[in-house]
Amino acid sequence: MPSLQEDEETLRRLQRLGNQVVERIKEGENPYFERPVRSRSNVEFDNKEKRLKLGDSRSKRYFMNIGHARKFMQTMLVASKCKELIEEGRTASIRELYYQLKHTIPGLNENTLEDQDESNPVVVDLETALDSLREHLHLKADAKGALFGPIVIEDEGDVIDCLKLGKSGLHVPSIVDDYNIVEHDADYILVVETGAMADRLVEEDFHKKENAIVISAGGQPSRGVRRLTNILHNRLDLPVYVFTDGDPYGYYIYSVITAGSMNLAFESNRLATPDANLIGMTMSDIEEYGLESVTEKLKGKHPDKSGGPTKDYKRAHDMLKYEWFQNKEWQNELETMIERGVRVEQQALATNNLQFVAETYLPEKIKRGKFLP
Amino acid sequence: MPSLQEDEETLRRLQRLGNQVVERIKEGENPYFERPVRSRSNVEFDNKEKRLKLGDSRSKRYFMNIGHARKFMQTMLVASKCKELIEEGRTASIRELYYQLKHTIPGLNENTLEDQDESNPVVVDLETALDSLREHLHLKADAKGALFGPIVIEDEGDVIDCLKLGKSGLHVPSIVDDYNIVEHDADYILVVETGAMADRLVEEDFHKKENAIVISAGGQPSRGVRRLTNILHNRLDLPVYVFTDGDPYGYYIYSVITAGSMNLAFESNRLATPDANLIGMTMSDIEEYGLESVTEKLKGKHPDKSGGPTKDYKRAHDMLKYEWFQNKEWQNELETMIERGVRVEQQALATNNLQFVAETYLPEKIKRGKFLP
Repeated sequence: MPSLQEDEETLRRLQRLGNQVVERIKEGENPYFERPVRSRSNVEFDNKEKRLKLGDSRSKRYFMNIGHARKFMQTMLVASKCKELIEEGRTASIRELYYQLKHTIPGLNENTLEDQDESNPVVVDLETALDSLREHLHLKADAKGALFGPIVIEDEGDVIDCLKLGKSGLHVPSIVDDYNIVEHDADYILVVETGAMADRLVEEDFHKKENAIVISAGGQPSRGVRRLTNILHNRLDLPVYVFTDGDPYGYYIYSVITAGSMNLAFESNRLATPDANLIGMTMSDIEEYGLESVTEKLKGKHPDKSGGPTKDYKRAHDMLKYEWFQNKEWQNELETMIERGVRVEQQALATNNLQFVAETYLPEKIKRGKFLP
Repeated sequence: MPSLQEDEETLRRLQRLGNQVVERIKEGENPYFERPVRSRSNVEFDNKEKRLKLGDSRSKRYFMNIGHARKFMQTMLVASKCKELIEEGRTASIRELYYQLKHTIPGLNENTLEDQDESNPVVVDLETALDSLREHLHLKADAKGALFGPIVIEDEGDVIDCLKLGKSGLHVPSIVDDYNIVEHDADYILVVETGAMADRLVEEDFHKKENAIVISAGGQPSRGVRRLTNILHNRLDLPVYVFTDGDPYGYYIYSVITAGSMNLAFESNRLATPDANLIGMTMSDIEEYGLESVTEKLKGKHPDKSGGPTKDYKRAHDMLKYEWFQNKEWQNELETMIERGVRVEQQALATNNLQFVAETYLPEKIKRGKFLP
């Protein structure tokens, strides 16, 4: 759960929102609240901060507007419930929030919410209107991911030595803002795409031998994993290396960790880690480590073919245009991938031997500082 | 990783398989190996053990048979690699196994394996031929799930007090056979379908107040979660309650935990927990706890409609025929669901208040012994 100071700050923001609405009503005016526009037209890349952010466009939502009234009512309901959660010291999943707010409005044959597709965007409206992370509103997403390594974390009063959790590891919850880092002995943070690869590294005692905090994302990283990476990097000033498959999906995972995502551009200051580098897999790994016989073909149509690019090719082609990939290394990487039409998985390194990734591949790359920016 | 005794037993079985093949070759005969037939025709419900198992049909796979030769070769490769893994004290994901074995056969323009769809069924062949769990062959699936509660587990030499892991919890690995239970103070085991509900219970200190081991499945339970439930139940002699959504998908999750699954019928003695009961959600909960306004409609067509049953209705309709649901309670439950055409989620209990599930619903059900068998 967020700290008491954070709670006080969020409560202040919620109260300010409520007071503004009440003031307008007292003045006999149409109550509204204002929030940044979230459509792609208002998402921009902050070249200084090296991450996505929302631009300056803002829009108002009015109560006395037939197109806005329902959403306005729902936003007030969510705001009021979040205030209650903070005051009670509880957190709720966005599914629970939906069930807590769903009811038939007395005197009307109408429900406050019909399904969760109505409440989810309202949560985001409130986050952006208040400039508060949803975790600060005591709302949480699903937990996914695991952590291993030389770090001691205090969580809800329990002091957890993450080096003493066997091969199981610490389950990464949705809310990690309240983690108190008691001490650590880590040289860097390694975020790993697949759970199986993280298991491999732990089995080889990589986290112990390399003094590495290993975070297993288990595919597309959860909000908890993204926030944890951001927090550990900022609080401990440790480098972050991201280890994904060498394919458009893996590079998109890296992109989300380093620059943020379009949908959550307003939160990338808290969810993204612009200093993170990609350690692998890369196209040049294929020759360097003799992986030619264990690559796979990209799916879809090459850009030069009629109807192309599609699928993997399209994703790689789109990434060529990302502002944070406008450098020689990434352009070269993506162009090579498209030209050769191949992808290479993390697990392909097992073709040599199982311990190769932990004993040779990763330590070598780190020693030589061989990363994609 | 499995224990040394288990490793020795698995090695003996692998060697026996290899010796049989070698003997046949020496005798100038066509080498083969035998394994149980895994098709549904050979899956049966063991009424005494209350779980699925394979019947007595067996089939032979010959080397000198044009339809068998490739699979035979692949099975020998997998067997040989598993022997190596056990001797090295390493485990491998089935993805790594694929990459370890994929190569071009010298002198032939042919690969040992084209993709993982070829190696995965061979792993199952070997498991059934040897009557060994894949974890005993040092192979692992993806990890998913979390554990909380009054139990101390020794994992790879680390002693982990699962009551001292804050709101994070212990990540449940794929292989749990080697967990050594140091001590526990639990009254029962609660397996929870959604991660969000497990988080709710932990936030309410349910695991502490109720002396409950809470296992979060995060949807369809992983092999690790199923095996862990089986192990904890058998070693600690604790009752197991399964808490799912009140819908066909949730009941299928319960079905897999209690009786096993068709595909893995040969492993249900190690993955299923026939003594497990369903604690909720049930159709009668809707009236009992005033959830009428927060139910949802079943998807698909009712059996009485033309073209029906489909989707949710079909799944519920199919479950009526499951042998382990041939009792008054389950027949009544499933018939009521189909008749009313509704489902009710775990999170719907939040409509009262967030703590209701932890303070009232679950303790009441346990006190009154109100379960589905």
